Amino acid sequence: MGGDKAPHIVVEGAHLAREKFPEAKFIIYGDEAQIRPLVKKYEGLESVMEVRHTPDRVTAEDKPANALRHGRNSSMRLAIDTVAKGEADCVISAGNTGALMAMAKFSLKVMPGIHRPAIATYMPTKVAGHGTIFMDLGANAECTSQNLLEFAVLGGVFSREIFKIPEPRIALLNIGSEAMKGDELVKAASEVFAAARLPGKYVGYAEGNEIMTGDFDVVVTDGFTGNVTLKTMEGTASLIKHMMKEAFKSSWWVKLGMVLCLPSLPGLLIIYMALKKFSKRIDPRYYNGASLLGLKGLCIKSHGGTDGIGFANAIGVAAGLAANRFTDKVETELRRLGFEGHIEPLPEVTS
Amino acid sequence: MGGDKAPHIVVEGAHLAREKFPEAKFIIYGDEAQIRPLVKKYEGLESVMEVRHTPDRVTAEDKPANALRHGRNSSMRLAIDTVAKGEADCVISAGNTGALMAMAKFSLKVMPGIHRPAIATYMPTKVAGHGTIFMDLGANAECTSQNLLEFAVLGGVFSREIFKIPEPRIALLNIGSEAMKGDELVKAASEVFAAARLPGKYVGYAEGNEIMTGDFDVVVTDGFTGNVTLKTMEGTASLIKHMMKEAFKSSWWVKLGMVLCLPSLPGLLIIYMALKKFSKRIDPRYYNGASLLGLKGLCIKSHGGTDGIGFANAIGVAAGLAANRFTDKVETELRRLGFEGHIEPLPEVTS
Repeated sequence: MGGDKAPHIVVEGAHLAREKFPEAKFIIYGDEAQIRPLVKKYEGLESVMEVRHTPDRVTAEDKPANALRHGRNSSMRLAIDTVAKGEADCVISAGNTGALMAMAKFSLKVMPGIHRPAIATYMPTKVAGHGTIFMDLGANAECTSQNLLEFAVLGGVFSREIFKIPEPRIALLNIGSEAMKGDELVKAASEVFAAARLPGKYVGYAEGNEIMTGDFDVVVTDGFTGNVTLKTMEGTASLIKHMMKEAFKSSWWVKLGMVLCLPSLPGLLIIYMALKKFSKRIDPRYYNGASLLGLKGLCIKSHGGTDGIGFANAIGVAAGLAANRFTDKVETELRRLGFEGHIEPLPEVTS
Repeated sequence: MGGDKAPHIVVEGAHLAREKFPEAKFIIYGDEAQIRPLVKKYEGLESVMEVRHTPDRVTAEDKPANALRHGRNSSMRLAIDTVAKGEADCVISAGNTGALMAMAKFSLKVMPGIHRPAIATYMPTKVAGHGTIFMDLGANAECTSQNLLEFAVLGGVFSREIFKIPEPRIALLNIGSEAMKGDELVKAASEVFAAARLPGKYVGYAEGNEIMTGDFDVVVTDGFTGNVTLKTMEGTASLIKHMMKEAFKSSWWVKLGMVLCLPSLPGLLIIYMALKKFSKRIDPRYYNGASLLGLKGLCIKSHGGTDGIGFANAIGVAAGLAANRFTDKVETELRRLGFEGHIEPLPEVTS
């Protein structure tokens, strides 16, 4: 459900995800008249996908508080409730992020020991096969050092359990590596991190250009900075892609060069395949699927503008977390580290 | 002076800059024994470059307050003083940014109406030939909405006078485009911007992925977010370059593809030239040279890790600002907009 191109991408994504996760089963909420013909397009999908007709939906413009108040029968809410009831292992949505977070907090509940859930994603790095967990991506525009500490615990468990890093290197995003650098929040958080027990090792500050070097396993920041950072990465990659296209498409002499190369077609094809491989490595669809961490149930946010391949990747993230019994691992770790004493906050909604 | 590879890059940069700015004259501060042989390497450079022997220097590790207190005879300080005395139009340094800002504030003085100077840079965009002014890059980790407003005025004048945009579109960096989005600072700033007179038009929020679309002429944020954003762009571009190199260099079959293409050498060369042109467009050296704005004299910060080409570009930024009499234009604009009433702050140093 949800997203700019739903339900097409959702159905196509489920179809594509089956290749990697043949045992996955799906429940899809939305307009049955729209969904049913799409499901029928893919052989065998109907037998693993239950369609639950839900006319009501949350739109991109709905404020989280409104969605929470008036969206009790929306496809987003009913899908979340499916996880709350234990009928499904994870909910995946490409819809309104604020509404998803508000509803997930209300329906799935926040874990004991966590004040505010956060949104985390996997970032590619220069080290092949090694990703960095980066958070918060925008759930909490204003944070305290305690919030950041809880994010670090959630991210650390993610890195350890999903990427099998025995002792994740946890860093705070800052504008320099020296202790005196940064704003008040990050300086206070650094002291808290250094004194705290963590599922990993606090290694100090990471700068913006170090998120993707592979030198850190978890990089923590507030939701304002995290959201700007994530979108800046998207914008930079998009600019570079645009410039590359321009360099190759805009001038007649490049076309001439291509024509001149035609006699060496096998060679050209190989170079083209290398370019394709490179494109795939920087293709945001293959990194799609951000996790709402700190909840008692699994909830994955897909990029709204993705396609079937991207949505399939988000399903893959969900499958990985579910197979690893991620929620249990986090609860155990929070207890072990002594975070559990906190009173669970009331479901809180930012308008 | 300054920088990881000084004085080589400084001398080479001056030599390269002469091609575009044949009338430029240089005064260089530093170790004469090191500098003199470098200057002699480039024909005719000696006649336009005065070497002033200065054994004392600011290091990358010096805290701004210490540099200000104990660096009165450092090459950085003496170079800044040259501008303060009117002997030079602009100072360019690849050294310690914090020290440069502290000394420049002290020696050049802050303009009436400006509480805190900011560091601004030119960002490439998808629109060829159109750049966005982005600031603050890290001079002020904590900001008030008044600080951001003053940055907007400085950036607006930059866009109008240097890029000849009659009415610059000025935006605040935020995590969404709706009014309710963001942290307290950005929401307060948005109200201040909407009510203020600006050298341009306040057009609302820009997200991280919109800094380089060409839809905005000036994008304003606090120094913490700005610094993280700038370094994230560097990190993303560097990751993409790394992945591209890997895709082409690591496997024997790509090498085979290249060999197979050799018979079409002229075509290959043309494609290679297109790649080169693209590389140049994303090469950070060609965007090097950030301006310290809000001071009574011109001061340009070069990236510490750049080379001669990058330093030449920073000299180009300086030459452009000096030729446009940028400082006078800003003072006139601040007066016109009624910013002048503020009391000039005492030289203030963040340690």
